[in-house]
Amino acid sequence: MKITEARPYVVKNLKYALNPSSIAVVGASRYPNKVGNAVIRELQKWGYQGAIYPVNPRADKVEGLKAYHRLQDIKKPVDLVFLAVPAHIVNAIMHDCVAIKAKVAVIATSAFKEIGRGDLQDLITQYCRDHELPLIGPNLVGLGTPYAHFNCGFIPYLPVPGTVAMISQSGANLLAALGTSQENHFGMSFFVGLGNKADVDFSEFIEYGEQDPHTKCISVYSEGLDSPEAFLKSCKKVTKPVVVIKVGGSKIGNKAAFAHTASENPESDAYYDKVIKDAGAYRATTWQEFLDVSLALGLQPPMMGDNIVMITNGGGAGLLSCDHFERRGLPMHELKEISPLLTQRMRAYMPMFGSPLNPVDISGTATPIAYKGAFQQAYRDPNVDAVLGAICPTAITDVAAVAQAAIDVHESCKKLHKPFVMICQGGGECHDAIMRLRDNGIPAYATAEQAVNAMVALRQYGKKVAKK
Amino acid sequence: MKITEARPYVVKNLKYALNPSSIAVVGASRYPNKVGNAVIRELQKWGYQGAIYPVNPRADKVEGLKAYHRLQDIKKPVDLVFLAVPAHIVNAIMHDCVAIKAKVAVIATSAFKEIGRGDLQDLITQYCRDHELPLIGPNLVGLGTPYAHFNCGFIPYLPVPGTVAMISQSGANLLAALGTSQENHFGMSFFVGLGNKADVDFSEFIEYGEQDPHTKCISVYSEGLDSPEAFLKSCKKVTKPVVVIKVGGSKIGNKAAFAHTASENPESDAYYDKVIKDAGAYRATTWQEFLDVSLALGLQPPMMGDNIVMITNGGGAGLLSCDHFERRGLPMHELKEISPLLTQRMRAYMPMFGSPLNPVDISGTATPIAYKGAFQQAYRDPNVDAVLGAICPTAITDVAAVAQAAIDVHESCKKLHKPFVMICQGGGECHDAIMRLRDNGIPAYATAEQAVNAMVALRQYGKKVAKK
Repeated sequence: MKITEARPYVVKNLKYALNPSSIAVVGASRYPNKVGNAVIRELQKWGYQGAIYPVNPRADKVEGLKAYHRLQDIKKPVDLVFLAVPAHIVNAIMHDCVAIKAKVAVIATSAFKEIGRGDLQDLITQYCRDHELPLIGPNLVGLGTPYAHFNCGFIPYLPVPGTVAMISQSGANLLAALGTSQENHFGMSFFVGLGNKADVDFSEFIEYGEQDPHTKCISVYSEGLDSPEAFLKSCKKVTKPVVVIKVGGSKIGNKAAFAHTASENPESDAYYDKVIKDAGAYRATTWQEFLDVSLALGLQPPMMGDNIVMITNGGGAGLLSCDHFERRGLPMHELKEISPLLTQRMRAYMPMFGSPLNPVDISGTATPIAYKGAFQQAYRDPNVDAVLGAICPTAITDVAAVAQAAIDVHESCKKLHKPFVMICQGGGECHDAIMRLRDNGIPAYATAEQAVNAMVALRQYGKKVAKK
Repeated sequence: MKITEARPYVVKNLKYALNPSSIAVVGASRYPNKVGNAVIRELQKWGYQGAIYPVNPRADKVEGLKAYHRLQDIKKPVDLVFLAVPAHIVNAIMHDCVAIKAKVAVIATSAFKEIGRGDLQDLITQYCRDHELPLIGPNLVGLGTPYAHFNCGFIPYLPVPGTVAMISQSGANLLAALGTSQENHFGMSFFVGLGNKADVDFSEFIEYGEQDPHTKCISVYSEGLDSPEAFLKSCKKVTKPVVVIKVGGSKIGNKAAFAHTASENPESDAYYDKVIKDAGAYRATTWQEFLDVSLALGLQPPMMGDNIVMITNGGGAGLLSCDHFERRGLPMHELKEISPLLTQRMRAYMPMFGSPLNPVDISGTATPIAYKGAFQQAYRDPNVDAVLGAICPTAITDVAAVAQAAIDVHESCKKLHKPFVMICQGGGECHDAIMRLRDNGIPAYATAEQAVNAMVALRQYGKKVAKK
């Protein structure tokens, strides 16, 4: 249900959603194929340290824990109530939540507005609002944070710890992001599936992200923006970058968004595009871009000018990059225009057939020492706003050593507050290098265009920062 | 140097470039850090079965092989001469090549036109043309094919065997593609770096690809299209699909293309865009799209109509897909418009809260059996032109079993000649599933938009096939 701005009582209580001292699971099942059982097992498996109270009217024990017949039987404070019960029971449980003064309710249950039961969903939502009980969901997959070893839902894995807050209306896409996190070292601060988003809104999680000390980038997957004013206000209020992927803009996508999360998109995609733009958020077009841009904004400082220097041992990666920079409206400049002195200095790190044009092609024979020197010179030149490095493995390229050179320079030049991004295009040794670079705070990508998108987002964020 | 059409003597001789019985390596060095040494080691390491003749005026043995002081000393037929000597010696060696009646010359040496020595490059090229000796290069990384265990150049690995012919002007991007091949099971039939492309042209490799029995898709990375008429004619002549990524269209990219491979782009990017379109080739924008589309065209039949059915267990993947289909000009249609009967049948494979809209959302609880049934129904419906499947791992999804279901259905329905593409978005188990699907002939991708691009290309190829 629509709101016009983030509600303070909701934002305040979201800490109980993501860092609860105690959780009651209503619908805690003894059968391992049930959601209400999986939730408890995942909480235990990943090392949640708070109290877990299974609630089941027909069980005394679930997964080795004492079970309670009703929420009221717990008799201890409950921060979060997780509901995995059939839809027609949910309303009664919400009354119990209010009775025991729970801080937040999370409803996993499906079959509400998305299949035509909008009345029931609205009834429950209004009840929660009347009693200032934030409701997350319904129709969601779960939420959690690696920093508290907290995995609450039917979610196969925690992400690696990091700086991106992942707020997703789609459970499947949230799970995909978590899988990517594990597989490609995409670090997250916390994650939440919002599902039908009946009550708690994007705007409220955006404001919570601003407060969360681990979060540096707030990323939102949206199927419908039913409270655009609240979104706009919260985005303008926060200092951290916000990345949005908004779907449902196509003719059939509009219908699919309703069938999936009961999201309504009464306005054209151009309208939502304008809202996101006015909000100063970055709108990603593809899922890959969404992840790539989020990673960069979570790891690197804003880019405060347009002068990017690219250093590569392969002309091909350079060409793909400069074409894509121009395509994205941030064309590269020749090095001699940025800094004639740097142009001369770069000559020391390349053979005769290299090119200091920009992309600076230090050639396929480049050693880790040549890379290091070129990176340092570029970083330290006061006319340079950002550095993009590329490793293209030839038979003589020591990919791991070049990655280490990048990590060393990045570490020693961090205080200059310039974005540093890497491309490692190739096979297994490049994948390994990407992982190590990411672990050391450098956004690294397998293709040139991904890195360019990341830099475009850092520049856009730089412009937003400059305005403030 | 420009040609106006592919020359028959060149196309005929390219079999000696990619399947030579004997190779002479001129500049065969005894020092392991030299290109002329690496070439011989790579040939041996990957199991090349033909004769290898090192040529070195100051050595009698190189890497355990008898060395010759001059090409003329070999006294046996030589199919391919590989040159890794300084630029100023190349001209003299070409005379030797003609003297011994070599079938093809491959020049790895750099420092020709790309650093201002266009005269020398043209002199050598004209000499080769006068004597009908095809010259590949100069300034290239190498060439090879996994089918002959043939890796000729300074290239760290062979690709996995497959159906894509990779013709790349950039060595670094070729190496990246080879690395991706190993890492992501992107199969290739053969690969070649063209470098400055002084003599042998894209068009001639495109016509060779048409003849090569392993090749099903011909993929070209181009920094300059200096013989557009020849490209156009060859693309129109061949029946196999051609994919092109053409760079150098940006202001700085135009200069970088010259600095890299001496490529000149006197016309606007719109001109080259039109040439590629008129040729009936698919133009990819990003490197990822280039690989994704090539893989699909190499594995699947053309798509002969617009009716795509998507089957997914996650609404998010469905939404990303239908938005991207519309963005790419191939909007999805509702299932009830494609086939009312299929709409009814699909209900059997989903719970109450699933959706048969299209994307067909069989929900997060979908079993491998449900997937199999849904895939089969979609495949067999005569109104359906192509099937897109998506796996989004929930805590209860058996990703490997669903992938196996896809492989089984694909195998049994191959004779229907409809494209089948998969999305597996997530972590390690999805990566493994993607590898298995690809090994079994199904193009599979980690994100929805990649799969959509693949299907758009299959449709475009279908339209080209229908015209013939």
